[in-house]
Amino acid sequence: MSQIIALLTDFGTTDAYVGIMKAVMVRIAPNVQFIDITHQIQPQNVNQAAFALLNSYRYFPPDTIFLCVVDPGVGGTRHPVAVNAGGYTFVAPDNGLLTHTLTEINQFNVVTLTNSAYQLSPVSNTFHGRDIFAPAAAHLANGIPLETFGDTIKELHQLPLPVLEIEPLQITGQVIYIDHFGNIITSIGELSWSNRDQLILKPRFGDISQSLTIYPSQIIIQIKNLTIPGIQRTYGETPQNHPLALISSGGFLEIAVNQGSAASRYNITAGVPVTLKIG
Amino acid sequence: MSQIIALLTDFGTTDAYVGIMKAVMVRIAPNVQFIDITHQIQPQNVNQAAFALLNSYRYFPPDTIFLCVVDPGVGGTRHPVAVNAGGYTFVAPDNGLLTHTLTEINQFNVVTLTNSAYQLSPVSNTFHGRDIFAPAAAHLANGIPLETFGDTIKELHQLPLPVLEIEPLQITGQVIYIDHFGNIITSIGELSWSNRDQLILKPRFGDISQSLTIYPSQIIIQIKNLTIPGIQRTYGETPQNHPLALISSGGFLEIAVNQGSAASRYNITAGVPVTLKIG
Amino acid sequence: MSQIIALLTDFGTTDAYVGIMKAVMVRIAPNVQFIDITHQIQPQNVNQAAFALLNSYRYFPPDTIFLCVVDPGVGGTRHPVAVNAGGYTFVAPDNGLLTHTLTEINQFNVVTLTNSAYQLSPVSNTFHGRDIFAPAAAHLANGIPLETFGDTIKELHQLPLPVLEIEPLQITGQVIYIDHFGNIITSIGELSWSNRDQLILKPRFGDISQSLTIYPSQIIIQIKNLTIPGIQRTYGETPQNHPLALISSGGFLEIAVNQGSAASRYNITAGVPVTLKIG
Repeated sequence: MSQIIALLTDFGTTDAYVGIMKAVMVRIAPNVQFIDITHQIQPQNVNQAAFALLNSYRYFPPDTIFLCVVDPGVGGTRHPVAVNAGGYTFVAPDNGLLTHTLTEINQFNVVTLTNSAYQLSPVSNTFHGRDIFAPAAAHLANGIPLETFGDTIKELHQLPLPVLEIEPLQITGQVIYIDHFGNIITSIGELSWSNRDQLILKPRFGDISQSLTIYPSQIIIQIKNLTIPGIQRTYGETPQNHPLALISSGGFLEIAVNQGSAASRYNITAGVPVTLKIG
Repeated sequence: MSQIIALLTDFGTTDAYVGIMKAVMVRIAPNVQFIDITHQIQPQNVNQAAFALLNSYRYFPPDTIFLCVVDPGVGGTRHPVAVNAGGYTFVAPDNGLLTHTLTEINQFNVVTLTNSAYQLSPVSNTFHGRDIFAPAAAHLANGIPLETFGDTIKELHQLPLPVLEIEPLQITGQVIYIDHFGNIITSIGELSWSNRDQLILKPRFGDISQSLTIYPSQIIIQIKNLTIPGIQRTYGETPQNHPLALISSGGFLEIAVNQGSAASRYNITAGVPVTLKIG
Repeated sequence: MSQIIALLTDFGTTDAYVGIMKAVMVRIAPNVQFIDITHQIQPQNVNQAAFALLNSYRYFPPDTIFLCVVDPGVGGTRHPVAVNAGGYTFVAPDNGLLTHTLTEINQFNVVTLTNSAYQLSPVSNTFHGRDIFAPAAAHLANGIPLETFGDTIKELHQLPLPVLEIEPLQITGQVIYIDHFGNIITSIGELSWSNRDQLILKPRFGDISQSLTIYPSQIIIQIKNLTIPGIQRTYGETPQNHPLALISSGGFLEIAVNQGSAASRYNITAGVPVTLKIG
């Protein structure tokens, strides 16, 4: 069984950058297995990367090392870090990319990646993915302990959490992600079906101790000029090309168009407010 | 030697969906090796996926497991299935995606994927790739027998076969695929060169018992307003930026532009009729 | 430790072509590990492929086999070749793709890939990647010696080297690559910082015996209508959305826009001249 290294970057796949990072890693740790989460985070969009990681990390096997490089501040003052949390290790710039995931895991240890023994030499100012992050991930895969890489730090840079306000008759959230199909993922979650008639909301952001039961027939969802009554279980419960709301695969309120792109149709991007009115 | 799992989806590579499926699989079957066929099938285009699979499956080693998820009916009434055929195993929704491949292989066994012991829990309504198909592929890679996953069924949903009509002086087909280079692949095949002067046509769709010998100098190909005389052996037999007909790498009649995109130049998409006139 | 096969093509990732090549290879050599450099070289752009290979090959472990297929002349008179050089093996069409890399490595052995025992049968005229190049790479991974594949040849087709003219007060180069972020990579390099105040230029093209020391405060860079004074160390030394010059991760003079796309902003493509004026 190989050690898994999962990659998440904004490098795209048209250049050699991702291949170069993998080359650097197999030189150091020949038996790793790579799984690409995505390399098509929008350039410098740390927020999008933070949600992609939050949505995926829990499906990976224990001991997976996550190499996350969306790094607009490369060569500047932000620290490169490695973090042990929840049985995983995350290697990333300290720019908020790990905020949502570490908030959820709650307990973690962080070191800065300063030990030059585990870096390429010389270190460039423009490609720490190759020179600092990839070597760190590979040496971690080889079993080098976290504390060997640099000093422990206590605080990480925090992204603002997404809006999620829960009032008795209204839940206010925002769009956090648009996927490849044009499905609109919002911050309203984690939602699940308790039985045929009830939705359970256990907030994943903000005050996570709350829990709310909602009757789906009493729901009206509003986003921009679009009003959607109720929450469906599957895309196919609505005619083709019609909008609907349902629970996303990540457990969030999703607005979709059956076999179409809701984001294009309604011109909706990350950050747009969404409200769920009850009763 | 690892068990190969080949992946074919319309998930794109901008989201974490493919990475999540691989994560689910390596948790269950740590020693598999993944080969991506493509994840850029047009969203919900089951037809395109069916041709991509037909074009590629025969090159994979025996025992390869194909995980095919283009699934507009996710969460609805279509069955998730696993199929043993020709020494391979195919895991897919029963929506016609496997039609062309199984028609060619001819003999197969199908079960529905209903045994919840081989699914993630809970199963979402929007991402059966993660919750049903990927776990099934991984458990199959671990050697769990097909019949353990659910009941045997006899019939699969069938896509219509592509048009391919063979008359003494005219062959009528249609465009079945446009590739990345803009090359136009038609249903007229399987074509091969018997010697310097003759083409052999053994139909891959419809009545496959026929066989036809054609003199390439007697051929005129017509698609939309474009008329092409003869069939060349290589792109380079035509001047740069000129159209030509040749045999595609999959054995079908292909219309191309030397070092250009025939599909853009002549505005041709899947489904457009093509005729090959003889004599 | 698996044998690494690194892939570099213009096949894109929407079709099954790359997956088919990998399938062919794992049938022949089950224990290889694939690393994709990129499959998104612009169709038929041998020049771009040559720079992508030059930029990446040195990071791969010894014995890596590079499968490079950008092949506008497929089926024509250009030879398919395999080359041993610098501890690596390169498999490619003889169309100049290897020029820059082999010029740098300097010593190499070349054979043509004519032995049909190491090809698929029949060989198509349109997909030598599948029928000739992939099988060769896999058999090389299995340890078949280079000379078994065909006759030794002495000369390879050469791409013109990029412009790089060094005069006492002016260095003239050209744009050689635009990356995913819109960063503009020029032929002026290899550049490195000797200390806080000096740049060292050791030409990577042309007369590589020269070496030049430059004071960065004395530099003015001109490309089209854009004039940039000096060379920075990091993107962040310039305000967001402002242009700057710095050293690329490959050691070349790079023109960038902090958190933006310099190529789009200034409408610059490969081939555009750039001058660096001193004093």
